[in-house]
Amino acid sequence: MTTTPSLIDRPEAMFQLVRARQQRGARVGVIPTMGALHEGHLSLVEASNRACDVTIVTIFVNPAQFGPQEDFQKYPRTLESDLEALAKFKVDAVFTPRNEDMYPPGYSTYVDPPRVAQPWEGEHRPGHFRGVATVVLKLFQLCPADVAFFGAKDYQQTLVVRRMVEDLTVPSRIEIIPTLREADGLAMSSRNRYLTPPQRKQALTLSRSLELAAQMVAGGERASHRILAAMHAEFAAAGITDIDYVAIADPDTLAAIDEIRSPVVALIAARVGETRLIDNRLLTP
Amino acid sequence: MTTTPSLIDRPEAMFQLVRARQQRGARVGVIPTMGALHEGHLSLVEASNRACDVTIVTIFVNPAQFGPQEDFQKYPRTLESDLEALAKFKVDAVFTPRNEDMYPPGYSTYVDPPRVAQPWEGEHRPGHFRGVATVVLKLFQLCPADVAFFGAKDYQQTLVVRRMVEDLTVPSRIEIIPTLREADGLAMSSRNRYLTPPQRKQALTLSRSLELAAQMVAGGERASHRILAAMHAEFAAAGITDIDYVAIADPDTLAAIDEIRSPVVALIAARVGETRLIDNRLLTP
Repeated sequence: MTTTPSLIDRPEAMFQLVRARQQRGARVGVIPTMGALHEGHLSLVEASNRACDVTIVTIFVNPAQFGPQEDFQKYPRTLESDLEALAKFKVDAVFTPRNEDMYPPGYSTYVDPPRVAQPWEGEHRPGHFRGVATVVLKLFQLCPADVAFFGAKDYQQTLVVRRMVEDLTVPSRIEIIPTLREADGLAMSSRNRYLTPPQRKQALTLSRSLELAAQMVAGGERASHRILAAMHAEFAAAGITDIDYVAIADPDTLAAIDEIRSPVVALIAARVGETRLIDNRLLTP
Repeated sequence: MTTTPSLIDRPEAMFQLVRARQQRGARVGVIPTMGALHEGHLSLVEASNRACDVTIVTIFVNPAQFGPQEDFQKYPRTLESDLEALAKFKVDAVFTPRNEDMYPPGYSTYVDPPRVAQPWEGEHRPGHFRGVATVVLKLFQLCPADVAFFGAKDYQQTLVVRRMVEDLTVPSRIEIIPTLREADGLAMSSRNRYLTPPQRKQALTLSRSLELAAQMVAGGERASHRILAAMHAEFAAAGITDIDYVAIADPDTLAAIDEIRSPVVALIAARVGETRLIDNRLLTP
């Protein structure tokens, strides 16, 4: 299919469309995004096309998940090229709610996210997961899809959303799709477009240090502190000094792990220039 | 109809029943309760029977909305007589979820309720509305009814639920049904059964002081402090000293009002013996 998907901005219209399709027996998939779509997002659309009869993409740059010092204002908004990219897939509707409909005057109800939101991103982006949990819950109300697709690049976010949906008994299934990477290993991200060519090279340190960690574990290393030291050395060598965290953690609870006896997740958040990047990788002993 | 309604305790079964009926075009009403049903609850069932094709009653004594010093353990649980009472109406299902399904191990996601939850009950029962908002949101996920019915006796709760549903864009409509009273004026409440006969008499002070307030406003009084003083005098005369609040407030925001220029709500919470009772009344100048 190569038709431009229809745009919906009214919340009620979105809800009615999903309900009408479900009443005719269709299985509905939703991909919540902030736009600035890249191939990672499109792989979520493909996954929905494979698993569902109807695919909805939501595009909403959610102010509630940005801190006051963060890049909400300059976050890329590229609706026209997003729609072009989506036209290559079967997308039944693109939901672009307006800020004033999502957060009307007097708005004051938030989702206090589950415990797994507290470490790592939670410490470095206070309020971020509260904003994420709130907007995702709202989107599940407006677009009560059977399945929702999220990318594994935002590893902690996938845990927060999964646990929130389980705790609040939201009747949508969560599917996590593997991170898509550029040929050289850089995890795809809407924020990559902020990078200058030299920063683009520096940014490879994230995936390279994760690859190093995976090799060390494959080679028998079990002590997290030695792996973390080696990863930090990679960052130092690349001249990246603004590191929020480099961590080896339990893949479910995200508690820091000292000795690797079962699969763990390595998590990184660092700034390359002004651009904050995150990446992660499962390490299996 | 006088058939005993069918009991559902599995969350998925509840969801599937509502969805199946909605897919066949039925309009579904839900009445969330903590059981210990009285005529007030039954008036909500009647309202649902009038407005909807399918009526679901939920019975769940929600631990999350009780404080550590409150009456969660001794709260009346009277399922058998509740089902008998409901058998006189058209009730398609009674949803009695189990604690361990509602709050499984590791449960840690809550709804941080809207601003209107802060004063009055919010100050005297910290965490109460967080528990209410959370369980109501969960019930709306498991039982995505078209309409939900709440009683006006819990006035602040109705505002909290309405605003939460609006903020989180929950696609259920909220209907508020007027408080039902005993012949002598006592607002019906599951907690009235705690009262000894002398306390039952003392408890009339709540509705009597509200009646006094209404008469004063009807008689031209506009100064809240004089009305509140008269109400407090009623409580003193009745020997009720454990008063959480007696308030005259904006009916939407619940901000305290000094001078009555438009409709206000009078709110009371007080303990008669060990039993905490609340009541309210709209006052129209």
